Amino acid sequence: MTNEFAIPRSVEWKETYIRILNQQKLPDVTEYVELETKEDVFDAIVTLKVRGAPAIGITAAFGLALSAKSFEARDLSDFRRQFADVKTYLNSSRPTAVNLAWALDRLTDSIRDAISINEAKTTLVHEAIQIQIEDEETCRMIGQNALHLFKKGDQIMTICNAGSIATSRYGTALAPFYLAKQKDLGLHIYACETRPVLQGSRLTAWELMQGGIDVTLITDSMAAHTMKEKHISAVIVGADRIAKNGDTANKIGTYGLAILANAFQIPFFVAAPLSTFDLQIENGDQIPIEERDPDEVRQISGIRTAPEDVPVFNPAFDITPGSLISGIITEKGIVTGSYTEEIEQLFADCQLS
Amino acid sequence: MTNEFAIPRSVEWKETYIRILNQQKLPDVTEYVELETKEDVFDAIVTLKVRGAPAIGITAAFGLALSAKSFEARDLSDFRRQFADVKTYLNSSRPTAVNLAWALDRLTDSIRDAISINEAKTTLVHEAIQIQIEDEETCRMIGQNALHLFKKGDQIMTICNAGSIATSRYGTALAPFYLAKQKDLGLHIYACETRPVLQGSRLTAWELMQGGIDVTLITDSMAAHTMKEKHISAVIVGADRIAKNGDTANKIGTYGLAILANAFQIPFFVAAPLSTFDLQIENGDQIPIEERDPDEVRQISGIRTAPEDVPVFNPAFDITPGSLISGIITEKGIVTGSYTEEIEQLFADCQLS
Repeated sequence: MTNEFAIPRSVEWKETYIRILNQQKLPDVTEYVELETKEDVFDAIVTLKVRGAPAIGITAAFGLALSAKSFEARDLSDFRRQFADVKTYLNSSRPTAVNLAWALDRLTDSIRDAISINEAKTTLVHEAIQIQIEDEETCRMIGQNALHLFKKGDQIMTICNAGSIATSRYGTALAPFYLAKQKDLGLHIYACETRPVLQGSRLTAWELMQGGIDVTLITDSMAAHTMKEKHISAVIVGADRIAKNGDTANKIGTYGLAILANAFQIPFFVAAPLSTFDLQIENGDQIPIEERDPDEVRQISGIRTAPEDVPVFNPAFDITPGSLISGIITEKGIVTGSYTEEIEQLFADCQLS
Repeated sequence: MTNEFAIPRSVEWKETYIRILNQQKLPDVTEYVELETKEDVFDAIVTLKVRGAPAIGITAAFGLALSAKSFEARDLSDFRRQFADVKTYLNSSRPTAVNLAWALDRLTDSIRDAISINEAKTTLVHEAIQIQIEDEETCRMIGQNALHLFKKGDQIMTICNAGSIATSRYGTALAPFYLAKQKDLGLHIYACETRPVLQGSRLTAWELMQGGIDVTLITDSMAAHTMKEKHISAVIVGADRIAKNGDTANKIGTYGLAILANAFQIPFFVAAPLSTFDLQIENGDQIPIEERDPDEVRQISGIRTAPEDVPVFNPAFDITPGSLISGIITEKGIVTGSYTEEIEQLFADCQLS
């Protein structure tokens, strides 16, 4: 990769503060914000300055470690009490984000055996950094595993932003594009704008351009025509939750792309870390679909584009059945075909290793 | 239909002026504009205050008749010269609109045998009104022919605005909804917002609400999930141009809906007058697809939602192959199945009748 391009990072640990990319201001303004207090961190998560489950988890972990550094505690018990309070506070910023609770729990576990306040403070910082490093490695491995699915000059379609700025680095669905760029494979990406919240046009288009990757923006309605006319060779998307049988919840619009890809006999891939699999869930029917504020559909960036009282259906996600998915790319390899058996095997292998 | 609802009209002849609905201001403001001069008419067409091929043709015809009423001509030859000048002027307002040229030519033909200036002036007004009446009857017949395809309580999906305000009245794809309302059939319509120009949210949602028809707005990306979850029973769309074999050019996004409908085994209908068929064109491959200003995709209602220099693919139309179309509903009946033979037969029958 040449020096003029860089894969953007959403969160960085700076010892005395946390530096985050303000994703709310993209693509108009590339603004980095310095978070110095637990209130700063809470606010950044609540106001969606930082978004993407892994990036939220990392930011919260850094926030908890940063806050703990400044505790003035009488003893270790007092330290743990203050720690628990800040943890509860940060955990309430996005109650449904699984990675957030997971990252904060991991910090708690890391200081279980600490014997001094100073040791605890140091351990928390190391553990938070470790979470970020592991996430980056997970994303890099997903990208690596996906890379052989594409060949030089391929035209690839994606939706939403399963990108570097939603994770520690690289992203999930976008990870192979960055690795391909490093190997000079020259992929060309078609990014669907992803109404209603426009993560494709606001975030993915911006992020790929920052990374020096060829990207063309289309509206979601142009997917079928583009697949045909631009000879799309694969579709790759992220995932919010994957059931035991491979059924995948992801941003609204994903299911439609999978059906179109199937009609054009284009492979359709899901890229996601193992942490996205929910083995408690047998199939997609059991995944609840959040319906969001109707004004997201009636308005665009705050401008009303529909009658203000028009009824709206605004599901945030849809479920793509495993039968339409050519492969699910994880950091531990690709599962494909008989998802129930393969996913079970994948997790069994990981526990052994 | 109860009195509180009314099917909105886009163009009305008012003897001394033409009253048009300013579609540029919808859905925020319901504004009617009075056109009194040929310049007013030209401007209304150029600035898209009036849109939809039939509505443009009717407006231009009214404009030419209105302008001719005020000609101060020495003799009939002088009248015809002035008439030709205004015709050329109005015809240049939207050079690619077939209905525009067709309507103006029809006015020219109507005064071919006129023997006085007064007769010519009267004939032009009558002919322009006749064009509007015939268009309304065509739309009503399309609606009538489509009506038996739906049953009480059906959930139906549409895209763009093939509606009353794009025609004289009723529209094409939306016509059966108004007739169903009159018969208290209670259809429920899902309108796709139709990015990039949002004719679905700005126009169709508004128009159907005016007409007292149940409508729910969705983004284009929600079509697949909505078809499945809301048990959509049919999709019906308009057409810009239909080839001899049934391949249909229509607003971008139509092709994707047809593929989705096919995957869900939902019938997919095209509603269009015979004037939309282009029998010079063998199939959809021969229909050129206009690509429009990239800023339509980068911006929404003038607000930038993507990096300003991101490359964009912005086709205005796509081609739905006849094989995905369950039936094409015209004012003369429905063609279905072997389009090449059936379309040929339809036109042969019409020439005989």
